[in-house]
Amino acid sequence: MPRASSLFLDLAIDAEPTKVLDHGFVRVVDYMGDESAIVRAARVSYGPGTKTLSDDRSLICYLMRHRHTSPLEMCEIALHVKLPIFVARQWIRHRTANVNEISARYSILDREFYVPAAGDVAAQSKSNKQGRGEVADAEGAEMIRGLFRAHGDASYDLYERMLRGTDEELPSVARELARCNLTLGHYTQWYWKIDLHNLLHFLGLRLDQHAQLEIRRYAEVVWGLVRGWVPKVAEAFEDYQMEAVTFSRQERAILARMIDEGKLLDDGASAHVNRLSRREYDEFLRKIQKTKEGLS
Amino acid sequence: MPRASSLFLDLAIDAEPTKVLDHGFVRVVDYMGDESAIVRAARVSYGPGTKTLSDDRSLICYLMRHRHTSPLEMCEIALHVKLPIFVARQWIRHRTANVNEISARYSILDREFYVPAAGDVAAQSKSNKQGRGEVADAEGAEMIRGLFRAHGDASYDLYERMLRGTDEELPSVARELARCNLTLGHYTQWYWKIDLHNLLHFLGLRLDQHAQLEIRRYAEVVWGLVRGWVPKVAEAFEDYQMEAVTFSRQERAILARMIDEGKLLDDGASAHVNRLSRREYDEFLRKIQKTKEGLS
Amino acid sequence: MPRASSLFLDLAIDAEPTKVLDHGFVRVVDYMGDESAIVRAARVSYGPGTKTLSDDRSLICYLMRHRHTSPLEMCEIALHVKLPIFVARQWIRHRTANVNEISARYSILDREFYVPAAGDVAAQSKSNKQGRGEVADAEGAEMIRGLFRAHGDASYDLYERMLRGTDEELPSVARELARCNLTLGHYTQWYWKIDLHNLLHFLGLRLDQHAQLEIRRYAEVVWGLVRGWVPKVAEAFEDYQMEAVTFSRQERAILARMIDEGKLLDDGASAHVNRLSRREYDEFLRKIQKTKEGLS
Amino acid sequence: MPRASSLFLDLAIDAEPTKVLDHGFVRVVDYMGDESAIVRAARVSYGPGTKTLSDDRSLICYLMRHRHTSPLEMCEIALHVKLPIFVARQWIRHRTANVNEISARYSILDREFYVPAAGDVAAQSKSNKQGRGEVADAEGAEMIRGLFRAHGDASYDLYERMLRGTDEELPSVARELARCNLTLGHYTQWYWKIDLHNLLHFLGLRLDQHAQLEIRRYAEVVWGLVRGWVPKVAEAFEDYQMEAVTFSRQERAILARMIDEGKLLDDGASAHVNRLSRREYDEFLRKIQKTKEGLS
Repeated sequence: MPRASSLFLDLAIDAEPTKVLDHGFVRVVDYMGDESAIVRAARVSYGPGTKTLSDDRSLICYLMRHRHTSPLEMCEIALHVKLPIFVARQWIRHRTANVNEISARYSILDREFYVPAAGDVAAQSKSNKQGRGEVADAEGAEMIRGLFRAHGDASYDLYERMLRGTDEELPSVARELARCNLTLGHYTQWYWKIDLHNLLHFLGLRLDQHAQLEIRRYAEVVWGLVRGWVPKVAEAFEDYQMEAVTFSRQERAILARMIDEGKLLDDGASAHVNRLSRREYDEFLRKIQKTKEGLS
Repeated sequence: MPRASSLFLDLAIDAEPTKVLDHGFVRVVDYMGDESAIVRAARVSYGPGTKTLSDDRSLICYLMRHRHTSPLEMCEIALHVKLPIFVARQWIRHRTANVNEISARYSILDREFYVPAAGDVAAQSKSNKQGRGEVADAEGAEMIRGLFRAHGDASYDLYERMLRGTDEELPSVARELARCNLTLGHYTQWYWKIDLHNLLHFLGLRLDQHAQLEIRRYAEVVWGLVRGWVPKVAEAFEDYQMEAVTFSRQERAILARMIDEGKLLDDGASAHVNRLSRREYDEFLRKIQKTKEGLS
Repeated sequence: MPRASSLFLDLAIDAEPTKVLDHGFVRVVDYMGDESAIVRAARVSYGPGTKTLSDDRSLICYLMRHRHTSPLEMCEIALHVKLPIFVARQWIRHRTANVNEISARYSILDREFYVPAAGDVAAQSKSNKQGRGEVADAEGAEMIRGLFRAHGDASYDLYERMLRGTDEELPSVARELARCNLTLGHYTQWYWKIDLHNLLHFLGLRLDQHAQLEIRRYAEVVWGLVRGWVPKVAEAFEDYQMEAVTFSRQERAILARMIDEGKLLDDGASAHVNRLSRREYDEFLRKIQKTKEGLS
Repeated sequence: MPRASSLFLDLAIDAEPTKVLDHGFVRVVDYMGDESAIVRAARVSYGPGTKTLSDDRSLICYLMRHRHTSPLEMCEIALHVKLPIFVARQWIRHRTANVNEISARYSILDREFYVPAAGDVAAQSKSNKQGRGEVADAEGAEMIRGLFRAHGDASYDLYERMLRGTDEELPSVARELARCNLTLGHYTQWYWKIDLHNLLHFLGLRLDQHAQLEIRRYAEVVWGLVRGWVPKVAEAFEDYQMEAVTFSRQERAILARMIDEGKLLDDGASAHVNRLSRREYDEFLRKIQKTKEGLS
């Protein structure tokens, strides 16, 4: 029975895959459309209204600012991705995509599982309910890595033993059953195909600092591909979404006062008056700080 | 052959439909879930992280602020809507919904077409490429309304004549063919079912001042239903989306200077330095104005 | 204000569009993937299980037989289509597609509306609740065509008059309002992009004899494109879906008896015994007839 | 930090959940619509064409026979499901659904993992590339079960140890990282909401004998719920889909000859003449066998 690795041998690999984590990668399989296709679709939809946007860059910025996202759907990209199963489980939540994943019912998976790099071994964050906080020291990280490695190997050993069985003693079991013993860190592979609008939505969520570190590493590689593919779209996405700041109705009131008075006069009072919780007020201050980063 | 109007006669009409435009309406057929369902789903997903958000209102605001929209998908609503075909064509662009529309291949449509109210007859906007500008005076509006009425009637007369044929002369033609002569202002009806997350997305776009006046009227009615159904969600949606202002990376730089200096020192220079077009700079000024509306 | 027709002038038209109806067309804008992409995706998903399907044709048939449709989603096609609005309204019901349609809020539409060809003017079908029956004679058809033509022109004249206004008398009205007077036969244009799996679903429904004649004409052209693009997929789709016959549980019982006895012994009784309505029994007989067409 | 189990404590559990596998369950959270809603939507769409289908049962059968599935979308159901992760990974491939899953980034999962029942421990199928074949004998099954249990416990022990750390030695690690050591057999929970049309599609695939045993067990429970909820729809789904047989173009030719001659005269020749592979010919014979099961 062939191993998973051999299934991809006959692929026409045009581009070198970009490595991610310890065994993963992202590779462009195919794509369709570019910025001229987006501009063309926008000019059809919005017609003469787009004539005054003389160049493509202005038009693309206009689309991004006004959430006219359907022209972006004219572009499509297919990626071949190798990734740990716990990352795949987060990734698949983006429903508007086409997926062909290797099946562990048909194939035997390879001995490949995720062991975090030393710098990525960290304790639960104290401030962030979902993420990582303090990084472990070198010795501690190495201990954790050793445990990951040993458990990954033990899991795979069991998987192989169940597939094979042992003479006269242990029966062999079906692939679909034996694989239950593999861990969530085990690597899988898929083809994933998505249009550019939905890809940007994916990136907006998965590049965010609240996303899990591991999927963020993949998002960064995909983001690099997007910047090469449609650079003006990527720039506009940065300007109008990733690097934009949004102030809620309550925050607007405090911001208005700041503009009037040139400073925050009375923080606690502002928060109180505007019904902001402490948590929200802290978020507001971080937005002001981010805003000022714009001031060179 | 029964008329369209008779098809709905046996409906269990629980609530009085809300009238929209001259012949249209919106009526709730059914719905599922409420704010407690949203909160329950959120607590399952985010678990103990949501414990510190003591009350439902805080939790719902948190979801809205952080784009955790999947709990909103637990709510679903089905509406019965009667609307002109040109409005239906804008509406159907929202793909994540279930639709059952009356078929003019099976049924004969009623003599109902849209004639704009006098106050809604207006010239092309000079500033807005897509919308309406100056409203016509009473006399002019009445002339336009008369033309709408006459053409709607002429279209329907032709439709009926083709359906019926005339003895020995004009052959009768199939419903699916005769209806081609009806206008885009003709009324149709459908059941439309959607989850709350996607409904809010629909409302965000269709309540916007750039949306066509007629679909905005429908969106306002639906928005009223949402406010009655899930009031805390509606309030959070207003606070964090509809009434929020977003500043792009370039705008952030100008805003930062305003905060520092308490005013806009040198408008043109600011725009230039920050690579804003005149159009974008005007948009920025409108955002500052909106921000200050928050300051009572 | 430019006309709709001029918006497409700068398109890089690689292929000659294929004409449909009197003013419509279908043109391939772009596509991605081919049969080797499908086969590659299938081999990844199903792995060694596909090794015994030595050639691509067998593998593609296997996918089609067993409804393993996700490999088909690796292919995508974008079409530029010009079509009457009533056809566009049927077409858009297929939700899994990307659409960029010309907007009559931004642009002025051209004077182009559908007038059925003489051979397509027909009365309501007597047997089929939705379709066309007896074709009109030449004289009658010409009368109907004349009415279509006159009404289309009158509608467009009114549209232009409202856009322009007349000095001192009739005010001009916004494009978004004036267009309400155009008919459902008026032509629109869009870019439409879809994956192959969903395209086949579209074709399965729109090539069917129950689909309206006019959309069927478009489906036939698209089907021709598919046959050129992915011929083995098209052949398998014909063999396993379009030309397949399906017998329900009740029909199976009658069929089993036919096989045993070599003929239908007692029709009415069979229908009765198996709880088939007259209508269903007729459908069954048509299936048997279709089955026998397979016998040369 | 609360355990996953405690998150659901405050749920208003109206119905007793139905147990599946060793720790899983399915529970109805809410639903919307019933057969009268389907019938109403169908009568709106198809209008007078449905008047001759006097009773609801006939109308529902008509919809099912002719793939008019949009009225089924008027019904929606939300389930609370507890299931092993490898089952969840198959389930989530059905994209047209709303999902809220417990997050192992926020919560600590309970010590619950799947151990197959003795009767479900089986070797790889020899004929079916993906499924299970010969069941292990009692002693062998118990050995396998013991290995599952020991490995599940070892994985969970490691998970807990990493979450806690040990004083002065092993650092504690974040939940999102520690959980990578859990296995694919570990249980998760979600709310899953879907419309009836897409639910039937799910059931068609997951009740099939080619689906993995474990997800089939869930599908069977859901199927039971559907039969209680919309019994006429369930019956029509059985009659026209699950219990229907479909013959391809090639198979039609052989079937036609069988009907004519009352038997299969020359099997091999038939297969050859009609270009059927051995594998396809076997499938054909199984269909004939299934057809004859209809003959009591």
